[in-house]
Amino acid sequence: MKNGTLTFVGLGLYDEKDISLKGLEAVRNCDKVFAEFYTAKLSGTDFRKLETIFNKKILILSREDVEKGDKIIKCATTESVALLVAGDPMMATTHIDLRLRAIDKGIDTLLIHGSSIITAVAGLLGLQIYKFGRTTSLAFPEKNYFPTSPYDVIKENKTNGLHTLILLDIKQDKELYMNANMAIRLLLEIENIRNENIITKETIICVVGRAGSLKPVVASDTIEELKKRDFGPPLHSLVIPGQLHFLEIEALEKLAGLPSDIGKKLQKL
Amino acid sequence: MKNGTLTFVGLGLYDEKDISLKGLEAVRNCDKVFAEFYTAKLSGTDFRKLETIFNKKILILSREDVEKGDKIIKCATTESVALLVAGDPMMATTHIDLRLRAIDKGIDTLLIHGSSIITAVAGLLGLQIYKFGRTTSLAFPEKNYFPTSPYDVIKENKTNGLHTLILLDIKQDKELYMNANMAIRLLLEIENIRNENIITKETIICVVGRAGSLKPVVASDTIEELKKRDFGPPLHSLVIPGQLHFLEIEALEKLAGLPSDIGKKLQKL
Repeated sequence: MKNGTLTFVGLGLYDEKDISLKGLEAVRNCDKVFAEFYTAKLSGTDFRKLETIFNKKILILSREDVEKGDKIIKCATTESVALLVAGDPMMATTHIDLRLRAIDKGIDTLLIHGSSIITAVAGLLGLQIYKFGRTTSLAFPEKNYFPTSPYDVIKENKTNGLHTLILLDIKQDKELYMNANMAIRLLLEIENIRNENIITKETIICVVGRAGSLKPVVASDTIEELKKRDFGPPLHSLVIPGQLHFLEIEALEKLAGLPSDIGKKLQKL
Repeated sequence: MKNGTLTFVGLGLYDEKDISLKGLEAVRNCDKVFAEFYTAKLSGTDFRKLETIFNKKILILSREDVEKGDKIIKCATTESVALLVAGDPMMATTHIDLRLRAIDKGIDTLLIHGSSIITAVAGLLGLQIYKFGRTTSLAFPEKNYFPTSPYDVIKENKTNGLHTLILLDIKQDKELYMNANMAIRLLLEIENIRNENIITKETIICVVGRAGSLKPVVASDTIEELKKRDFGPPLHSLVIPGQLHFLEIEALEKLAGLPSDIGKKLQKL
């Protein structure tokens, strides 16, 4: 019986053309292709276009399938299996968990990397990657569940002069993608609860939409100004900047439309 | 006279197969291709292999060419120009600066993203991306120049329980790539100067080498153990972990060979 392999292939940011040549080759050469789109998704394509590019059938895994893992691990015991994920693999704990369980079964595992929202947002805004503190994410509030932890991360980063990348929740099964406007509303609601003056109407915020596409939207202004603007289809991400270097201010003006009077004020801080 | 364009194309992590299909298409369709490899490089390939894949001649820019920018901007005024960079573009300030000056000249600019060391290292080690603080980099010390700022970043992150990714310097013109061993020696030297007990022989450290290749090296142990180990050819990166989640400890044991007695001790913290 031949030994199986499990290769996690990052599809990158946006559509079927964001996979690397190495990833494409791995998928075309494997015995079976699985994909999961509940931890992250490609908003510019669908699995049929991916099937066309790979010339292979893709088996879409549910959240339960990935978390239980037995279906994919069973296959990978004797066959070469690719698991497609949006972005760079291993950004979700469930991927790490799946990889460790595959290793426990003696399966060889491999990662093929893809472009990630973590660096893309910084690049699109012209903000320096070295000035980002920890990343946080905003979840859809549910009955009895309204996590305010992103507030603590933003506060901690601001205290250290650092930018905060805020990733926005998706609920793939319900086709719900949190947009920038809802995220801004949630941040203001958390401010109302916590009342520590971290997020106000005057706070400068940055929005990136459809990173990885040929026409991403990139905006920066006060929360007051951006909260009602329409940023188009998902996915959206936010950044709350910390202390800005003068080149970063210039970048926000030229790339993201930060009004020059605000830029001038920031230059003097 | 037709308007020019400047597209920054991320080549991803390691070799000529880490570019995305979108990047490949953009390069094949443009009038002129430039590349710069002084801010970062692909250790698994060379520009001739890239030329073969693109079926195009690549003009390599020196550091001065990129910083001055006039050569590439002049071309991009009337032609469609691609600038190839390792990793994800815009991680170097000089790229941001070049993009802003191109915009000043009325040139349309575009980013095509690539896989980045920032997320790849976390993924390869099985560490959670949300638990990384700011990234830092270690420079080759020079006469009258021995920056100790990475120490402050590690200290700040440790205080907040966060992991620190440490990128290691390259001097492309001299073909010098800092390896993990030299980086560990430098960190211990900085500890000797600062004496705040942040980095000791017992400190747990993680090494990743050749991220993006099919056989990356991934190791985790005390500084004492790893400082003499040979991690093979460049590029190398380090992580100094903060507070570790139990799944992260399991990942370091199974993926990076962290000794189980150390893992057990960490599980009790």
